[in-house]
Amino acid sequence: MSDIEIAQANEAHNMLPITKVAESVGLTAADLELYGNYKAKLSIPTLRRLRHASQGKLVLVTSINPTPAGEGKSTVTIGLGDALRLRGQKAVIALREPSLGPVMGMKGGATGGGYSQVVPMEDINLHFTGDMHALTTAVDTLAALIDNHLQQGNALNLDPRRLLWRRALDINDRALRHVVIGLGGHANGVPRETEFDITVASELMAVLCLAEDLADLKARISRIVIGYTYDRAPVTVADLGVTGAIAMLLKDASKPNLVQTLAHTPTLIHGGPFANIAHGCNSVLATRTALALGDIALTEAGFGADLGAEKFMDIKAPVLGKTPDAVVIVATVRALKYNGGVKLADLTTENRTALAEGFANLRRHITNMQRYGVPVLVAINHFVSDTPAEIADLIALCEAVGVTAVDAPVWADGGQGGLALADAVLAALQQPAHFTPLYAQATTATEKIETIVTEIYGGRNVTYTKEAQTALRTIRRNGWDQLPVCMAKTQYSFSDDAKALGAPDDFTITVRDVIPKLGAGFLVVMTGTVLTMPGLPKVPAAERMDVDENGKISGLF
Amino acid sequence: MSDIEIAQANEAHNMLPITKVAESVGLTAADLELYGNYKAKLSIPTLRRLRHASQGKLVLVTSINPTPAGEGKSTVTIGLGDALRLRGQKAVIALREPSLGPVMGMKGGATGGGYSQVVPMEDINLHFTGDMHALTTAVDTLAALIDNHLQQGNALNLDPRRLLWRRALDINDRALRHVVIGLGGHANGVPRETEFDITVASELMAVLCLAEDLADLKARISRIVIGYTYDRAPVTVADLGVTGAIAMLLKDASKPNLVQTLAHTPTLIHGGPFANIAHGCNSVLATRTALALGDIALTEAGFGADLGAEKFMDIKAPVLGKTPDAVVIVATVRALKYNGGVKLADLTTENRTALAEGFANLRRHITNMQRYGVPVLVAINHFVSDTPAEIADLIALCEAVGVTAVDAPVWADGGQGGLALADAVLAALQQPAHFTPLYAQATTATEKIETIVTEIYGGRNVTYTKEAQTALRTIRRNGWDQLPVCMAKTQYSFSDDAKALGAPDDFTITVRDVIPKLGAGFLVVMTGTVLTMPGLPKVPAAERMDVDENGKISGLF
Repeated sequence: MSDIEIAQANEAHNMLPITKVAESVGLTAADLELYGNYKAKLSIPTLRRLRHASQGKLVLVTSINPTPAGEGKSTVTIGLGDALRLRGQKAVIALREPSLGPVMGMKGGATGGGYSQVVPMEDINLHFTGDMHALTTAVDTLAALIDNHLQQGNALNLDPRRLLWRRALDINDRALRHVVIGLGGHANGVPRETEFDITVASELMAVLCLAEDLADLKARISRIVIGYTYDRAPVTVADLGVTGAIAMLLKDASKPNLVQTLAHTPTLIHGGPFANIAHGCNSVLATRTALALGDIALTEAGFGADLGAEKFMDIKAPVLGKTPDAVVIVATVRALKYNGGVKLADLTTENRTALAEGFANLRRHITNMQRYGVPVLVAINHFVSDTPAEIADLIALCEAVGVTAVDAPVWADGGQGGLALADAVLAALQQPAHFTPLYAQATTATEKIETIVTEIYGGRNVTYTKEAQTALRTIRRNGWDQLPVCMAKTQYSFSDDAKALGAPDDFTITVRDVIPKLGAGFLVVMTGTVLTMPGLPKVPAAERMDVDENGKISGLF
Repeated sequence: MSDIEIAQANEAHNMLPITKVAESVGLTAADLELYGNYKAKLSIPTLRRLRHASQGKLVLVTSINPTPAGEGKSTVTIGLGDALRLRGQKAVIALREPSLGPVMGMKGGATGGGYSQVVPMEDINLHFTGDMHALTTAVDTLAALIDNHLQQGNALNLDPRRLLWRRALDINDRALRHVVIGLGGHANGVPRETEFDITVASELMAVLCLAEDLADLKARISRIVIGYTYDRAPVTVADLGVTGAIAMLLKDASKPNLVQTLAHTPTLIHGGPFANIAHGCNSVLATRTALALGDIALTEAGFGADLGAEKFMDIKAPVLGKTPDAVVIVATVRALKYNGGVKLADLTTENRTALAEGFANLRRHITNMQRYGVPVLVAINHFVSDTPAEIADLIALCEAVGVTAVDAPVWADGGQGGLALADAVLAALQQPAHFTPLYAQATTATEKIETIVTEIYGGRNVTYTKEAQTALRTIRRNGWDQLPVCMAKTQYSFSDDAKALGAPDDFTITVRDVIPKLGAGFLVVMTGTVLTMPGLPKVPAAERMDVDENGKISGLF
């Protein structure tokens, strides 16, 4: 059965009312704002109350560098959560919201897979509770207000050539990557070049995910730098006078959403910033809520550990006020063989040599996570083509570097398939965690960048284009030089060359721009050619999708 | 108190759970999909069941040509509904959904006013149940799929210069009226000129509002003409193979939403197509549901009766299978004086001469509605500055042309202020209605256009630009010449000159294009300079809006 078929079979007969799921972690109907019977948002008073509740243990799930072979971070996180509950633990999961663009493009759904899924999967993958749409609306309303300001006399003296704010859609639309707007004469705006991002790449998504409450959301929105004046002075949303309107559009989107896994484990799904252009973690509010509601909170970080987990540690954790008590790195035999040079078509054939070769990728991620001072273990997301010899090899390779690896057939077996992993996690949580940040906040942007490149990526050094040097001067001039840095790098490699798989050495990272995101509170460091608006493939997933006259959806997986 | 203050005072203490409101018209919790406690969608099985229920009487509320002075169609519709219930009638209201673009721009909210409002007004004016966002997503996903088709080899031989499908946002953004997309080299799409519309102006909105169920929605989507090949053959959504995906995105949006007035009158709010570029009426499903649930269903049509009501009669009614049993034309003393030449600043001063002069506008609308063979009456939406003499004059002017006019202070007094109007409507519903369509379907587009221009607008004749003549040839060649026509004309005048107020005579309407909308099932006739993407004013309403740390919204009115 496909993922959607498994989900639908379950949804019809087995989903609990979300009020029941909420009860299992001590919430009442009064804490919830229902969106149908199976989805709810947590109310503002409830979020405020839970902020002061005692916190459980935090498990961060991350992975090796993504490959076309698939890793399955969400699937493992969900299966692990269900397994921990089978072991009698009060586990709560906190995930990111799917983006419709990739759903319609290549990826299909993003709600786990097999018997480790969150439901109702169709709703979560499509419009859910409207958070992405509210964000898109807020992003584009702000853009319209900026262009209207240019049109109506430009009292702020904004330089149309130096605007930073871009429009966004939650759609993979490469034709909007580079556009000219404002054509058609004086009544139709000021002509200028601009770009559209996918919504999850917008600063407002990062703002939503880092905001601690509505007051903080407003403060962050007010600080967003929308561009510069002709005199190169930064101009913020506060200067434009529309902080309140933009925050108002995000009022409901700022509240975490509660759903359930197929096994009824409470799951908060909230926020989904890209892990390259942004920090790639779900919202601080959702993770904090999971920590307050559960004895163990499981959360994930986007892409590989070089991007998502590094940003979790260095950007999200300081805001969250909590660092992980254990880190689980998800790997697959397939993906490691791919890293070892095997072609996509040949991954179902046993190849222990390639596995050993590709292990270099996992090994570096293990070392990186260990340097943060927290217990690390490896979850093997089991595919049907994995051979016993390959699994045994991978476990041995991990043991050789002092790390427990556990075979976790959660796709096929749900929580039952994750029991061994759950036991390993529970053992890891008994170990002491002595979190050590990668860098001190009171260092410069270039110092932070160089630390990440040499210590995490394993690169040799960093070069800066002329544009990046100019950007860094602007950043220093404005006093932003000590903000955390958010690296925008290809997810496929430790380097900025997407084709350099495994564990490349001795490479140089080229920084081509540094963009201040004062609302998010970090500097985005652009390396290589990071796309902030994906494209659709030759045969988009959309072509398979359908809905029948009763509203039943098919082809979404 | 402002509208939002009145609404909030009520929402806090007086709103009924929407399940209770539903009970008052015989619906149970099983018929509803809840969106919080105060909003619900009707389920597909319920809509199917109600389709075969007996139908109540239908009252269409329309108005004189809009002016900056304000008319208040929604306010009168709501106040009338509440008044009818005070008179013991089972009245159900069916309105259009507000568009966020105008809310952020000039208009503020669109949920009635004063003590004649629908609630929760903040939700309805902002994201509501996500219908607008689902539409925007569907419109732009289709556009991305079309541009991706061009990018990936263009197997359908689409002519990029002859694409009809445009992107949309629910935002007033004049800078997107004329854009060039696909710039930046071969990986970033095929460069071409295009336009963005506001979402409510998109054909998909008209499709949603005319669809009778999901099967019909899919059939309509499949028929949408997205453009032409290099050989000038039309290309549809079905040809592109994405009907299912687009319909899937609209699955929930296609279900009517149930809310309540301040006095708990059940109100269906669903769909909101522009009344110039589209037909300007709420959905067939919502109106049909109101007819099934109530003894009297009240609905409105956009802009003045020359646009919205004409399209209700000639486009919506044939699909609905029901014509109005009475028509209420809303007028204000202020707006008539404005039509009589008084400046906006001077409208609070009594001016009986200007009122008599401006009455010409109302008189023509009365005549137009009477020609459809249904009882007509006038509702005077009372403003505080109206003098008793002005009200008396207006009633007398209407009586002189054989029509009852009723003073209706529903803004100030809610349903109590609409009792006299309710009595007049009940009397009108006792009169026989002998509906006569304006034109036979089996006439050509030019015949239909000329009938509307001479019989409804009061114009002399029609000229066609060269572009329009070419478009009409294409329409004839493809066999679309007998579809209903949907006039796109300025709402401010009977003519295509927005400045020609009152009741202009002896004018010519210039048709500059005719656009086939096969999904909606009509031909859009472009006259004058109709904007399908509004702009923001110098001081946008957004600048007044705010949300506090508890989520309370202000400045939305």
